[in-house]
Amino acid sequence: MADLSLRGVFAPTLTPVQADLTIDLPAYIEFCRRLLEGGCHGLVLFGTNSEATSFCAAERMAAVDAVIEAGIPADRLVIGTGAAAITEAVALSRHAVQAGCRGVLTLPPFYYPNVSDKGLFRSFAAIIDGVNDERLRIYFYHIPQVSGVPLSPALLARLAEAYPRLAAGVKDSSGDVDTLLGLHAVARQSPGFAVFCGTEGLLLKNMQGGGGGCISGMANVLPHVIRDLYDNWQAPDAEERQDRTNWIRNAILDSGLNMIAALKVIVADQTGRPGWSRVRPPLVDLTEEEQAQLLAKLSQPVAA
Amino acid sequence: MADLSLRGVFAPTLTPVQADLTIDLPAYIEFCRRLLEGGCHGLVLFGTNSEATSFCAAERMAAVDAVIEAGIPADRLVIGTGAAAITEAVALSRHAVQAGCRGVLTLPPFYYPNVSDKGLFRSFAAIIDGVNDERLRIYFYHIPQVSGVPLSPALLARLAEAYPRLAAGVKDSSGDVDTLLGLHAVARQSPGFAVFCGTEGLLLKNMQGGGGGCISGMANVLPHVIRDLYDNWQAPDAEERQDRTNWIRNAILDSGLNMIAALKVIVADQTGRPGWSRVRPPLVDLTEEEQAQLLAKLSQPVAA
Repeated sequence: MADLSLRGVFAPTLTPVQADLTIDLPAYIEFCRRLLEGGCHGLVLFGTNSEATSFCAAERMAAVDAVIEAGIPADRLVIGTGAAAITEAVALSRHAVQAGCRGVLTLPPFYYPNVSDKGLFRSFAAIIDGVNDERLRIYFYHIPQVSGVPLSPALLARLAEAYPRLAAGVKDSSGDVDTLLGLHAVARQSPGFAVFCGTEGLLLKNMQGGGGGCISGMANVLPHVIRDLYDNWQAPDAEERQDRTNWIRNAILDSGLNMIAALKVIVADQTGRPGWSRVRPPLVDLTEEEQAQLLAKLSQPVAA
Repeated sequence: MADLSLRGVFAPTLTPVQADLTIDLPAYIEFCRRLLEGGCHGLVLFGTNSEATSFCAAERMAAVDAVIEAGIPADRLVIGTGAAAITEAVALSRHAVQAGCRGVLTLPPFYYPNVSDKGLFRSFAAIIDGVNDERLRIYFYHIPQVSGVPLSPALLARLAEAYPRLAAGVKDSSGDVDTLLGLHAVARQSPGFAVFCGTEGLLLKNMQGGGGGCISGMANVLPHVIRDLYDNWQAPDAEERQDRTNWIRNAILDSGLNMIAALKVIVADQTGRPGWSRVRPPLVDLTEEEQAQLLAKLSQPVAA
């Protein structure tokens, strides 16, 4: 993995599936190209918006291989490697490192709730030690409202201290400003430790606090608008640029629809491929009525 | 899989690990034998108490194979096959069916919270249809305080109706009496649908309501005491027999220690094998002090 710090706008890439729910690799590869051409600095394959945990390890590794074989540069890829089992996280992370990917984004084991910081440190240490490769760059994934497992600033500081360079940063999807600011404090103590926000809605605040960028579901449908904010966060009209990124997210949130299913419907509309609207269980496809309501709410074909 | 309904006392078998955290297969096989000789009707390999989700699919299947190859009868085994990914649950379940196991105990996909009944039905249907084998007997695993995903009586009734025989029952680990009674109502509408409780503390109530028995962590350390209650639940002194099953669970709960780590320490004490006290991350081994306090609380070597 390259030694450069990770910075920029990353899309946790949605994963298209065929009618039999297997990954539609041609559509996937085409979409990866579209996002990079659309302004993303890089892609996170198999994040939460990718329905990562709904695919088994073999499916995840085969998809990463297919994307790289199709010519997408591995150094623009970060691979989500979180799993309930440490041994699976190690296998996924090792595969990503050996494929030359830029980094891995790793959930804590997410089955047992109320896990201690000691147990979480031991988990991530077992993953890093298990991969046992100096090229590893691991970004810790904080999304407690989904995983049920918060990562405390103290835990992250301890990991950054124990594994300099390898413990490369955090993605904070809590959506909470104070939490994000607390992580900036960790980064200030650990040079090279990058803080990414999981919503583009906090991108300006993250950049102002010294963060590295965002890894945001909306980058799947609005990459150029988010990239514009990233490139111009120090401009006088940065707040207006921030506002311009918010409208689709707000429309989806207002609709009360599942975010991932809704994003896939928007991509189906943008690409003219209706199959894009499929999700894997346990998520549920939007009904035709819900799809129509959502697209009407967006009121115009969404320009990507 | 045998067509007989599942009934009796089952231990969600603890999984011993070596210092490198791989499964200690000789100790595991010896322990399976010990539990069956100690009074368990059968074993659930890779339930929550087994730290199932802390082992990857390959490790889980290899351990099941090793137990059966060592001569433990497959028809006394139920295999935990829950996974975040449907494709993994299908692979684990198919493996269990083809090995001749008595049934599978299956969690819903447990990464995303707030999943709809429609999404859960679709998940379990995808698993059953994916295995596509009339020998499958699937027990749905209700443990919302850990998995974060409750299974409603309406969902279970719908599954029992859609998949007669194959949808064979439920394990209710909620620990809540009213929930258990609600599941008895489902079973009365679906002949052959068995209700197991996840705590031996509700075994008498479960039997009185027509349930099938229990799949209880305490059966790892007190199999004969729980078996005695099961065999005598209609005896005049059944309440006293119920009380006799409660003391170790209460002692662990009073101690505030993690239940799985505590049970493993008790097995280490019972078997004279200190390595039994190891857990896999994200759980944490009890300290020597905690171990000593726990064993002192139990105040005597626990007779299994």
